[in-house]
Amino acid sequence: MTTLVFGHKSPDTDSTGSPLIWAWYLSEIKGTPAEARLLGTPNTEAAFMLDRWAIARPAIIDSVSPGQPVVIVDTNNPAELPDAINEADIQGIIDHHKLVGGLETKGPIDITVRPLACTATILHDLIGDDMDRMPEPLKGAMLTCILSDTLEFRSPTTTPHDRAVAEALAADLGVSIPEYAAEMFAAKSDVSAFSEAELLRMDSKEYEVGGLEFRVSVLETTSPGTVLDRKEALMAAMGPVAEEDGANQVLLFVVDILNEEATLLVPNDTVKAVAEKSFGATVTGDTVVLPGIVSRKKQIIPNLTV
Amino acid sequence: MTTLVFGHKSPDTDSTGSPLIWAWYLSEIKGTPAEARLLGTPNTEAAFMLDRWAIARPAIIDSVSPGQPVVIVDTNNPAELPDAINEADIQGIIDHHKLVGGLETKGPIDITVRPLACTATILHDLIGDDMDRMPEPLKGAMLTCILSDTLEFRSPTTTPHDRAVAEALAADLGVSIPEYAAEMFAAKSDVSAFSEAELLRMDSKEYEVGGLEFRVSVLETTSPGTVLDRKEALMAAMGPVAEEDGANQVLLFVVDILNEEATLLVPNDTVKAVAEKSFGATVTGDTVVLPGIVSRKKQIIPNLTV
Repeated sequence: MTTLVFGHKSPDTDSTGSPLIWAWYLSEIKGTPAEARLLGTPNTEAAFMLDRWAIARPAIIDSVSPGQPVVIVDTNNPAELPDAINEADIQGIIDHHKLVGGLETKGPIDITVRPLACTATILHDLIGDDMDRMPEPLKGAMLTCILSDTLEFRSPTTTPHDRAVAEALAADLGVSIPEYAAEMFAAKSDVSAFSEAELLRMDSKEYEVGGLEFRVSVLETTSPGTVLDRKEALMAAMGPVAEEDGANQVLLFVVDILNEEATLLVPNDTVKAVAEKSFGATVTGDTVVLPGIVSRKKQIIPNLTV
Repeated sequence: MTTLVFGHKSPDTDSTGSPLIWAWYLSEIKGTPAEARLLGTPNTEAAFMLDRWAIARPAIIDSVSPGQPVVIVDTNNPAELPDAINEADIQGIIDHHKLVGGLETKGPIDITVRPLACTATILHDLIGDDMDRMPEPLKGAMLTCILSDTLEFRSPTTTPHDRAVAEALAADLGVSIPEYAAEMFAAKSDVSAFSEAELLRMDSKEYEVGGLEFRVSVLETTSPGTVLDRKEALMAAMGPVAEEDGANQVLLFVVDILNEEATLLVPNDTVKAVAEKSFGATVTGDTVVLPGIVSRKKQIIPNLTV
């Protein structure tokens, strides 16, 4: 049976590119027939990547059959995977997030988690010398994943190894990183087609802090004004989105990639208190700028206090 | 703070040797001060290994402090670790068992699980070229771990890679594998000093099947007669041990390493039914021989039926 390789729901660039890369490696190098899948519509940056490198968009699935061989990349969180994931035949997990517990396997399998910025960097290391055999479009996807997850090396999640791998790939492909990253971020910033509810869910993870369930949403953009022009409508959508998703509160951080700061929308006193206690911010209106904050993993989640 | 490296409770050879190997690697190669610990008294084969290679026995601990940096080897099961393990600062997990879920980490960490017979084989691969710098006693420990977990390559868990690593280590150390393994297994078989309850708990894991909780115990020995001479006392101890440990039934498999078969003790009709349904055995007395059965992971657990 063909092994399916996929990342998390609401696929970003890494969760779109890494399944394609690993499915190639399994099929072409390891001789295990495998195909990439998506657990939702890829975001605009991921769509740009597929278009730029002329890679066919993987089919979208929302469930897996019992016993289906799967490899999971870029998450180990059952909440970000199909409901019956533990009924599938999980053959491998490759990830760079903290272990949340909950995934179970029927036997010993290959699991590789590394504290790197990007899953694709881990894939690079696992593929090793066989990188020489990787088709150019997949090298392009790998580069895109790393530049995306590191925000072109601006994010504090960036390790020297992520950077070295990306720079070697760019040199190999003849790509200028500054020019290419600018194209990627412009694509990511083009969110005009999305509703407010879609924007709140686009890059969002749930975390419990102090007994409250937060949907922590991040929008990385080079054009924060475009998003902030819609702040009233976004704040109005937070209540219904939180209710529908079983959360107490949505937190929306609009990350200005180029200026390396985040703007947090402050719809109520709960979020005001979060901003003050978590980031030492002084909140006077319905938004607050958090200088230097760009990473949910490294800067937002570890500081979240109610 | 010094990082503590440990394996599972009731330490066998791999859970004694692998912490020593990894603590050396972290301290001497990676520059991270680390020390091995044990979560209980090592079994007789593990004690033989320490003695044979003149390695000091690590201190035994039964708890870890909150925030204590730890690396866990040879298990990912919270039930086999100190109670408050998720309060520790888990910095790495290296294992070769199925993922059971339950461990959580505060951030992304190094996790390596591989479907190999032995944790020490995974350590060998992670250490890579730095194997050249490993002191001889730790190479001896690594060899002992692999020969132990593979039952000198007899167990179906053995992969060609486990075997190749062990053979290279033996050649490097000038050790004859057949002679050395015979010494190891003789040490493992010397269980005269242990009470029946201790024997039932020595190499034991709990599994739930069909709503019943089984303590599945394995005694690997080259001298099954020595154990089976005590079968009445062992069966008499099963009830109290099961009750004390919150299990419904103890299953004791006496694995004859050299003849590659297991003898299951059959104290009652529950175990008789397990023997018949799981292994197609015909049970006529209070023991039954299961030809070819040597591996709990590969042969006993996957077939367990009530």
